Amino acid sequence: MATPDSYKPRIAVVGSGAIGCYYGGKLAASGQDVHFLMRSDLKSVRKHGLRLRSTENPEVFLPRVQAHASTEEIGPVDVVLIAIKTTANDALETLIPPLLHPGTTLVTLQNGLGNEAFLAKRFGSRRVMGALCFVCLNRIEPGVIQHMGLGAISIGEYRGKPKPRTLRLVEALCQAGIDAAAVENLITERWRKLVWNIPFNGLAIAAGELTTDLLMADPGLKKLVRGLMEEVVAIAAARGHEIPASYIDFQIERTLPMGPYRPSSLLDYMAAQPVEVESIWGEPLREARKAKLDAGRLEALYYLLKRLTSDRLAAGQSRKRTRTE
Amino acid sequence: MATPDSYKPRIAVVGSGAIGCYYGGKLAASGQDVHFLMRSDLKSVRKHGLRLRSTENPEVFLPRVQAHASTEEIGPVDVVLIAIKTTANDALETLIPPLLHPGTTLVTLQNGLGNEAFLAKRFGSRRVMGALCFVCLNRIEPGVIQHMGLGAISIGEYRGKPKPRTLRLVEALCQAGIDAAAVENLITERWRKLVWNIPFNGLAIAAGELTTDLLMADPGLKKLVRGLMEEVVAIAAARGHEIPASYIDFQIERTLPMGPYRPSSLLDYMAAQPVEVESIWGEPLREARKAKLDAGRLEALYYLLKRLTSDRLAAGQSRKRTRTE
Repeated sequence: MATPDSYKPRIAVVGSGAIGCYYGGKLAASGQDVHFLMRSDLKSVRKHGLRLRSTENPEVFLPRVQAHASTEEIGPVDVVLIAIKTTANDALETLIPPLLHPGTTLVTLQNGLGNEAFLAKRFGSRRVMGALCFVCLNRIEPGVIQHMGLGAISIGEYRGKPKPRTLRLVEALCQAGIDAAAVENLITERWRKLVWNIPFNGLAIAAGELTTDLLMADPGLKKLVRGLMEEVVAIAAARGHEIPASYIDFQIERTLPMGPYRPSSLLDYMAAQPVEVESIWGEPLREARKAKLDAGRLEALYYLLKRLTSDRLAAGQSRKRTRTE
Repeated sequence: MATPDSYKPRIAVVGSGAIGCYYGGKLAASGQDVHFLMRSDLKSVRKHGLRLRSTENPEVFLPRVQAHASTEEIGPVDVVLIAIKTTANDALETLIPPLLHPGTTLVTLQNGLGNEAFLAKRFGSRRVMGALCFVCLNRIEPGVIQHMGLGAISIGEYRGKPKPRTLRLVEALCQAGIDAAAVENLITERWRKLVWNIPFNGLAIAAGELTTDLLMADPGLKKLVRGLMEEVVAIAAARGHEIPASYIDFQIERTLPMGPYRPSSLLDYMAAQPVEVESIWGEPLREARKAKLDAGRLEALYYLLKRLTSDRLAAGQSRKRTRTE
């Protein structure tokens, strides 16, 4: 395991689900000073450590993890990796302040749009960076993360081009064995990711719990996938993020060999977990309105998902209540 | 029961579900010469007659009904009342010809758009009339129709203003105790009805089997209802059917006192019966395309419904197969 010589920031991971544990765990294994905020997994990780299993690489086992019950306990750090679900963003207003010193950088690894803006509004835009994670992970039990493929991460500044701090973080991730790269325009990259996520994550739920291959095999839904992608590209362009039209074909082509793939939002929905409706569909729709664009397909999908996911969540909670009573 | 003195056409009812039995039965009870094409209810009606029960009016009992197993058995008639589900329209190509003489009029009592055009293309537009039924009915067992409210019918020519034949049919229906009226522009009336049916019948299914009061109580879905209504009004206008914008408010207002109402398409969906997706959503969308209008909300709803309803139908049929095997 290579250890970076010069760059040894104090790092906090807020949101120690699969994403937080994976990237934070890899950094810790490479010798970085990583502190995890943990809730349900705290006891187990303190006792048994953290395991990153992989179908591709040898297991990474961290017997002793700096796991904490609160951000007060962690105290000020140089870098905060934020990996909680966007549906819980409100919690960041109280979780982040104990971690801050004047130079603390906040890096959101979260899905969709609006997370950098959320942090910038509350903690100042100079602090904010963001990252897109291209990785298939599953938390299979407390402290055990299963890696199922990919692993790349793209890191950029909320405002402007990569800075020395961006490159330092990229370098630290690379030293930890992660395929990390700096991106010139983070928000454009977010829009590019949404070109796929908006139709597939959404229709997989709204069309009756369908995998991507079934969506693509249905001529009407395939047309709707393309129509949604065109709306997303048009909104992005109107907000200053040019995406070439050929990117739509690329995204459709790359979906075909995926087989019976369940997008992450469908997995959340089927498990009666919160679905990140606002960051994936709500924010892009609000961007369309700012641009005075009529994005009818996106609007229909957004309002349907908002309802379907909140009904499913409520049904799941009432089932849970019944079981424990 | 008043009997019209002069106008005694030979009438066939094709599609003896609730709508066909109700209007046909009322006409027969008033002394008209009505012949019913029946399938599953034939034996029972021949034996026990036809009953029209009502929460508002005395029961109409027809002990002897002219019920037939085929249109060949009925032979040529003056008026055909068509009340099969639009999902079975293809059957009309073989059902109608035996009923025709040179002056036979075809009156479609079916839902949505495109039914007059379907008949006109196959049997000549001069023959074609249409009717909009505003009535709540339920076929509760073979030969027994429960009337639960309303009952009005608006009749018009497919092409042009009402003719003497239109008024004669209206008069015969009025004599049968039905609130019938002639309409100046039938297709405009169809679009007006779609302003309500497209959002409410559709979202009731796509948003997870919701009654109209729940749709209206959800701020997002209420917005989507209005957005869909605006699209329908815009498509209608582009195709030459002006509907005032105030009609949207009227349709929303009138929905509020309905309470937990299940639109007919939702009832069909819940019973795993075919839903009239093409005539209610497909045809209006195709009209939008002819007008080069982007109706994104309608398109999203159409493709979702197409999938959801066909999956439900298939699931229902496989359940039925399992039960009978």
